[in-house]
Amino acid sequence: MIINLENSEIKVLDKGFVRLVDCMPRLIPSGSEKLRCDYAIAEAARVSYGGETKSEQENIRLVRYLLKNKHTSPFEMVKFKFHLKLPIFVQRQLIRHRTANVNEISGRYTQLNDEFYEPAVLRAQSKSNKQGSSSEPIEMTDELIEYYDKYMKTNDEIYKLYNTLVENGVAKELARICLPQNIYTELYWCMDLHNLLHFLDLRKSPHAQYEIREYANALETLIGDVCPITVAAYREYFVDSVTFSKKELKLVKSYMNNTESHIGMFPTKREENEFIEKMKLL
Amino acid sequence: MIINLENSEIKVLDKGFVRLVDCMPRLIPSGSEKLRCDYAIAEAARVSYGGETKSEQENIRLVRYLLKNKHTSPFEMVKFKFHLKLPIFVQRQLIRHRTANVNEISGRYTQLNDEFYEPAVLRAQSKSNKQGSSSEPIEMTDELIEYYDKYMKTNDEIYKLYNTLVENGVAKELARICLPQNIYTELYWCMDLHNLLHFLDLRKSPHAQYEIREYANALETLIGDVCPITVAAYREYFVDSVTFSKKELKLVKSYMNNTESHIGMFPTKREENEFIEKMKLL
Amino acid sequence: MIINLENSEIKVLDKGFVRLVDCMPRLIPSGSEKLRCDYAIAEAARVSYGGETKSEQENIRLVRYLLKNKHTSPFEMVKFKFHLKLPIFVQRQLIRHRTANVNEISGRYTQLNDEFYEPAVLRAQSKSNKQGSSSEPIEMTDELIEYYDKYMKTNDEIYKLYNTLVENGVAKELARICLPQNIYTELYWCMDLHNLLHFLDLRKSPHAQYEIREYANALETLIGDVCPITVAAYREYFVDSVTFSKKELKLVKSYMNNTESHIGMFPTKREENEFIEKMKLL
Amino acid sequence: MIINLENSEIKVLDKGFVRLVDCMPRLIPSGSEKLRCDYAIAEAARVSYGGETKSEQENIRLVRYLLKNKHTSPFEMVKFKFHLKLPIFVQRQLIRHRTANVNEISGRYTQLNDEFYEPAVLRAQSKSNKQGSSSEPIEMTDELIEYYDKYMKTNDEIYKLYNTLVENGVAKELARICLPQNIYTELYWCMDLHNLLHFLDLRKSPHAQYEIREYANALETLIGDVCPITVAAYREYFVDSVTFSKKELKLVKSYMNNTESHIGMFPTKREENEFIEKMKLL
Repeated sequence: MIINLENSEIKVLDKGFVRLVDCMPRLIPSGSEKLRCDYAIAEAARVSYGGETKSEQENIRLVRYLLKNKHTSPFEMVKFKFHLKLPIFVQRQLIRHRTANVNEISGRYTQLNDEFYEPAVLRAQSKSNKQGSSSEPIEMTDELIEYYDKYMKTNDEIYKLYNTLVENGVAKELARICLPQNIYTELYWCMDLHNLLHFLDLRKSPHAQYEIREYANALETLIGDVCPITVAAYREYFVDSVTFSKKELKLVKSYMNNTESHIGMFPTKREENEFIEKMKLL
Repeated sequence: MIINLENSEIKVLDKGFVRLVDCMPRLIPSGSEKLRCDYAIAEAARVSYGGETKSEQENIRLVRYLLKNKHTSPFEMVKFKFHLKLPIFVQRQLIRHRTANVNEISGRYTQLNDEFYEPAVLRAQSKSNKQGSSSEPIEMTDELIEYYDKYMKTNDEIYKLYNTLVENGVAKELARICLPQNIYTELYWCMDLHNLLHFLDLRKSPHAQYEIREYANALETLIGDVCPITVAAYREYFVDSVTFSKKELKLVKSYMNNTESHIGMFPTKREENEFIEKMKLL
Repeated sequence: MIINLENSEIKVLDKGFVRLVDCMPRLIPSGSEKLRCDYAIAEAARVSYGGETKSEQENIRLVRYLLKNKHTSPFEMVKFKFHLKLPIFVQRQLIRHRTANVNEISGRYTQLNDEFYEPAVLRAQSKSNKQGSSSEPIEMTDELIEYYDKYMKTNDEIYKLYNTLVENGVAKELARICLPQNIYTELYWCMDLHNLLHFLDLRKSPHAQYEIREYANALETLIGDVCPITVAAYREYFVDSVTFSKKELKLVKSYMNNTESHIGMFPTKREENEFIEKMKLL
Repeated sequence: MIINLENSEIKVLDKGFVRLVDCMPRLIPSGSEKLRCDYAIAEAARVSYGGETKSEQENIRLVRYLLKNKHTSPFEMVKFKFHLKLPIFVQRQLIRHRTANVNEISGRYTQLNDEFYEPAVLRAQSKSNKQGSSSEPIEMTDELIEYYDKYMKTNDEIYKLYNTLVENGVAKELARICLPQNIYTELYWCMDLHNLLHFLDLRKSPHAQYEIREYANALETLIGDVCPITVAAYREYFVDSVTFSKKELKLVKSYMNNTESHIGMFPTKREENEFIEKMKLL
């Protein structure tokens, strides 16, 4: 079976996209239709165990076992190559993940297109912490609407000046320097499955910025289609899992009997609140 | 001896800098004053050879031998931590080097300062190739001066709007998205000596953009002070070296007798020109 | 304050050791005596926050916060260089951690010493799983004692033959190929704090082989001395923490009321047992 | 076109092999039959140039240009997964290349097979340098033949004892520790094209040990089949190229007139000899 990637493009934000260009493995032996690319994980792991090819059901169980127990190396054997179109401020977060291979459009070689990300709603600064992560949409007063419109209009003004400078012979690498960070760029981005799951951990987190979370969601959907066993197990064992520290563990039982028993047990109010949030999940 | 880093700051571009914050080793045993941090290279290499501590002169010879013969692993044992202030479009090139450890100022947490890189001269687009690399300063017609001034003024306008949005409660992570790529950012950047030399290879090249070359030059100066033997050997054996391909090698002798002997021997005009440039160095 | 590393050597197994040769930072500013190398973590993180230098107490809180919330990049700014003496079969596990820089004694250049690891007790193959991990010491029958003695004596026979081959002019790189994997080797091993904590996660695990666990313990002791805040927080938040999957979370409450309520809820007996083990910790 | 890998196995040494299990891309669009996997390099590079799909001939020229000019990132987009069977002392050299993903047979889980590498000829220790690299076969005196036979026979003795210990219930992870380093192991090894070429640089070098050179040769043959343009360009521009340092460059012309003109110009005899060797190639 050949993995078909013809419709593997997901639109993201107002003008962006994520497309799965290629993957390894691309050819799946018959009898592994449920595993799809997950097949290569079982295949690599069987080398470690000196084992023979097994039934599809046994391979599924093996993949789930490996993921749960953090035997990560077989998951590095599955490779993805994506084509992304994304604003530069999102690219700057994406590129921090150093295990990827990247080819990005170069503003030194090529004149960039006049496509800018324009948020549909403005998010307010979070009040609960200084950490800049947003929460609710902000109330759009007339004043704010005016400022926002002006702000977005500067994209076009700047792009015109950029264009004029290029037309007048200024080096593209220099003309581009005032282009704003919400201009769209494109890149090929190659990642293995293990490191992509780690990427999703960090970038699907509610602490991550909304815009990169949208890209992370699209990436998860695309790999969920070609690695169904791994992604389901990842959701089950990790995404919705909760970790209790040693101190928290000790308090679980007493908290169930008395929801005030934990008071004063944590060094900071933040840690106390985190504990209470976890207890709500039980 | 303690490596003194008090005056290890070099100004770069109009408002940037590179500062060597720390290095490993920081304490140098007496008798290795000429080696300084290069001492750690010889020390690590002696493990491979199962060898004893040697005289300073022998260690210098060893470091030079290791560098010339591309025994790279001992050079990974020397670490540098830099503090850089640089425009975002330069940071975007710097960050492509994945062996560094990075902590950058976060526009999600912190309101960015209104400092923008303003080039002293405008470089023209190169005509010899499409590669965008620049060459000579462009002739500044009145028209071009006007456009350029306007372009630079947009920095201030945009910054004011950014500031207003933040004051009106818009999340900083969102307010910042239109800030131009010539705004200055700051980061801590940790790199080992081997990978830093590779960085210099690529970023001191005449094909690299002028602005990152300035940072590469500053970095080379700073490490030249703490790793004098390595950096001198690197300049001698690599920076000004020339590599001849098999085909070129065969043509050297005949070219010396007849400077037209190479005509038609290369698949492209570009390769032919590269050969002629190399022959001028003989 | 200069970090003193004079007595930073710990004996491991019968003939091995771990020694902390150097670290970055090595000089600690006054007022950060409690933080020691942890100081560099707070310093790097303050770049991200655009923040000022703070009190020692605030820096300690910051380091703990960063660790708990997996803000890992500042922990990459602390570097360690170790000297290890270890058997080759342990080195083969150590070297799998690819973020380290390594210089190892070379059997091509140097004649190896006749030092072999001889386990004090023989561990039995685990019966609960096929995974080879050991458990209790095996009962030493006379027969087994005899086999074991013979096995250990082969080390000396082989070493003598190796020595003879080298003396007769055989290339060292070839003469060494029959040397057993319990022969001791030495290496310099450079690692950052973040990746070292990840190494400890994997190699202090009860699933790791006893011999590498001994090296992991020694490494943890050594960095605990120079990074006291990080290592204490790491123990508190991670080493003794427990993670519940989504399914497990749902079962915690019912299990407390009825310890048979989970039966049939897990796809494998292994997962069921893991759940019960976690519940015992509450 | 699907890349056919059915006969992609090459025997290496007496009992080893290298097999190309999979690669990315595996499906090649029609019109790129000459490029095969090299197609993906051109495709990724066109993102940087913002360019359109071009003719096969233009893509071939692009790949050659990229390789010659060390634009390495598009070459990271091609991935290979190999299955290797190799002695442990070769694996120990292979594993030093940290950009690979690896799954190796585990002696903790699996009883290892009694297959040992037995060199067909014994190489002598090199006399020209202490570096252990070999040269000519050694003269096999009766004495040496006897020692060598004894040495090889120890493999079987040790294996029997290993087997007995395992049969008597000793943990496999412990029983294996005296197994010699010429025992064969197997692994899956995933590498990208750029890093594989770098691997070949180092491991096809005459300074590398004969046994790993044999594996490097097999790897080169296998990728030469699926990446014909890249491997041909790599051979042309790099394998047989020669680099002259600044000092050497200055001496080329005078040496051609007078082969004694270089005497006393180099700091060591070794460097002088290296220069003379290079001049012979002209």
